[in-house]
Amino acid sequence: MQVNCERLKANLIELSKIGYNEDDRGIYRPGYSDADMESRKWLQEKAKDAGYDTYMDGAGNVFFGRGELTKPAVLMGSHIDSVPAGGIFDGSLGVLAALEVMQTLDENQVVTETPVWGVATAEEEGRFGGMLGAQAISGKLNPDWLMSAHDADGVYLKDAMAAQGLNAMDALDAAWRPEQLKAYLELHIEQGPVLFQENLQIGVVEGISGVFKWIVHLKGKADHAGTAPMDMRSDAFMGLADFAHEIERIIAENGTDKTRITVGKVELKPGNPHTVPGEAIFTIVGRDMDEDVMKEVANACRKALSAIARKHRLMFEYEQASWLAPKPCSKKLTKVIEEQVKALGYSYQRMPSGAGHDTQFLSEITDAGLIFIPSVGGVSHAPDEWSHWHDIEAGTNVLLHSVMANLT
Amino acid sequence: MQVNCERLKANLIELSKIGYNEDDRGIYRPGYSDADMESRKWLQEKAKDAGYDTYMDGAGNVFFGRGELTKPAVLMGSHIDSVPAGGIFDGSLGVLAALEVMQTLDENQVVTETPVWGVATAEEEGRFGGMLGAQAISGKLNPDWLMSAHDADGVYLKDAMAAQGLNAMDALDAAWRPEQLKAYLELHIEQGPVLFQENLQIGVVEGISGVFKWIVHLKGKADHAGTAPMDMRSDAFMGLADFAHEIERIIAENGTDKTRITVGKVELKPGNPHTVPGEAIFTIVGRDMDEDVMKEVANACRKALSAIARKHRLMFEYEQASWLAPKPCSKKLTKVIEEQVKALGYSYQRMPSGAGHDTQFLSEITDAGLIFIPSVGGVSHAPDEWSHWHDIEAGTNVLLHSVMANLT
Repeated sequence: MQVNCERLKANLIELSKIGYNEDDRGIYRPGYSDADMESRKWLQEKAKDAGYDTYMDGAGNVFFGRGELTKPAVLMGSHIDSVPAGGIFDGSLGVLAALEVMQTLDENQVVTETPVWGVATAEEEGRFGGMLGAQAISGKLNPDWLMSAHDADGVYLKDAMAAQGLNAMDALDAAWRPEQLKAYLELHIEQGPVLFQENLQIGVVEGISGVFKWIVHLKGKADHAGTAPMDMRSDAFMGLADFAHEIERIIAENGTDKTRITVGKVELKPGNPHTVPGEAIFTIVGRDMDEDVMKEVANACRKALSAIARKHRLMFEYEQASWLAPKPCSKKLTKVIEEQVKALGYSYQRMPSGAGHDTQFLSEITDAGLIFIPSVGGVSHAPDEWSHWHDIEAGTNVLLHSVMANLT
Repeated sequence: MQVNCERLKANLIELSKIGYNEDDRGIYRPGYSDADMESRKWLQEKAKDAGYDTYMDGAGNVFFGRGELTKPAVLMGSHIDSVPAGGIFDGSLGVLAALEVMQTLDENQVVTETPVWGVATAEEEGRFGGMLGAQAISGKLNPDWLMSAHDADGVYLKDAMAAQGLNAMDALDAAWRPEQLKAYLELHIEQGPVLFQENLQIGVVEGISGVFKWIVHLKGKADHAGTAPMDMRSDAFMGLADFAHEIERIIAENGTDKTRITVGKVELKPGNPHTVPGEAIFTIVGRDMDEDVMKEVANACRKALSAIARKHRLMFEYEQASWLAPKPCSKKLTKVIEEQVKALGYSYQRMPSGAGHDTQFLSEITDAGLIFIPSVGGVSHAPDEWSHWHDIEAGTNVLLHSVMANLT
């Protein structure tokens, strides 16, 4: 059994016109924007036309499917909102692939007592700092946050929702009970370079990497760059550079092939070309799929920074801004997905997801599985995000067969 | 023959009250400020009271001395302006040491046909981007610059001078002809840590280091810090860190003990903790006393950056924002100073000056020599700048005897 890729392609292209900006060719469907809501309305029409029931919950999540939700359902989906100037596949692919899988099942007269439903989650991209739709479904919201959350421009979530006829407090009623779900399956573009570089068709995702973020301060002495000899300096930047040089060793000794350490933001003080930097403030973001590995890596960073600070006569302090544990996908479901990939003859690898996805919240209330297809050049969150149609077809076939494997 | 350190101390302390700020205990005498002009007036009174002739030239430089300037003169001095929140010795020491030397010569009835004069130069600290007084004396000004120069707050030099009754164009008339000068001698605090750390009394300065400034761009690819594996990144920050790690080798292979390489300013783009830096823009400031060494060092930096860029898949570009050749002091005068230091029994070393001084312009029209004394902790341009009185006495004695050696 195979999905109809032409139909899926037509749907994706139709959806991509909602929120499209001609100037930068990007998609603009931030959570609860007019374009976002228009896409949800469009989806409900589309689902209705195909003969499915559909409804929107209090969080703005759109559900579509067939069968009373009285028995544990298999839910497929992803989000339909976008980052500003986003691409056409991020989220949308998982939503329309869900619709395509349901239509393929129907066309092939696959009869099952298990309800099969799709979902387009709301506000996954974090305009208001969360992953709102998936948090609502998994019951992870609270009234205080709903009332206080706002976007970078100071617009409150509750006001943005009210402008679309939604009452933020109703998002609390959107929670599903675990017994209502049998499984959650999400197809998504990788948003990274691995599958594309390795020339693989499918990524079987083992989970969402855990992540920690440190804000590190190295303090030395701001000296005149002309009068201070090299060996009499307490150069905070040189301390940072020495740490950067240790990253490869720290991963080799304490990490795995899934470990990432990134220094993404650096501020030097006073930041004058003619002054030895007296202070370096920078971020370290570390990731791995295993929380014990994360702890080892974090510990190694701390030890390296302590030693470097002593060597350069610096004061070393850090603040742990966040520590999020890894969110493993269901081992059972991951195995099921892998079996379908093998049976379908696609090339693949098991891999972590370094980015967050709805799956990470759904995994808290049901067996959740995540399927990746390659992103050309690893690009995402940009208008030049692209995935090949043959990869989209493969991914949707994997979703189809993984759903079928869960129907009995 | 010895200077009277008590008198010098009293003068320095009296001068330090002009422009003193009680809140931060710093000296505020920026060029052509009221406090700056008050200090010049004070100095002229002081010199007159001691029996010397005095005048202010069109640039605001104050001269004081005895003897018609018809024969080549020995000129001593430094600047009397300060950086905001500066210390009490930076510049002022050289000015008041000059007065002290003249008084000591007179008290000891040293009779000479060579005119001995002192100078308090104007606007050495570069409020308007130059070293105005010394440039005026050495004939290095032009009308265009005088009309267009302005400070960081947008105040024009010509307006600041006019507010003090000075016509900026008159600074062009302040130039001395080389045949009017026999030598220029400047006593200054080191403003660096070397003499203090090495526990030496005197620095015999061989010249002002040459300096080049590069603005370097490394461009890679801004990837998601979660989805981009370490070995698939084009991380511009890691390129910068690798370069920083090469600095020690570059100096060891191509530089001297006088070479300095500083990365003082860094900007990462996009500068997001969760994004692999796609771009690093940073400064390299290199210094040495030998222009050939500067060229070797610059070339080694370029080669290192090229190789690092290839390794990290980065684009490397740089702009040479400035290249100032070293300004050697007079070899003859440096030797004379060294001989006096030895005869006086002071500990010393020959050294470069990494900071700029009036000497660098005076050296273009006469034999110029520069004498350093230790700065406690290497601190300068700050209220906690300090030098010990016994070092001030030693330095002024060196100035005295160096002047005497130049009188015949």
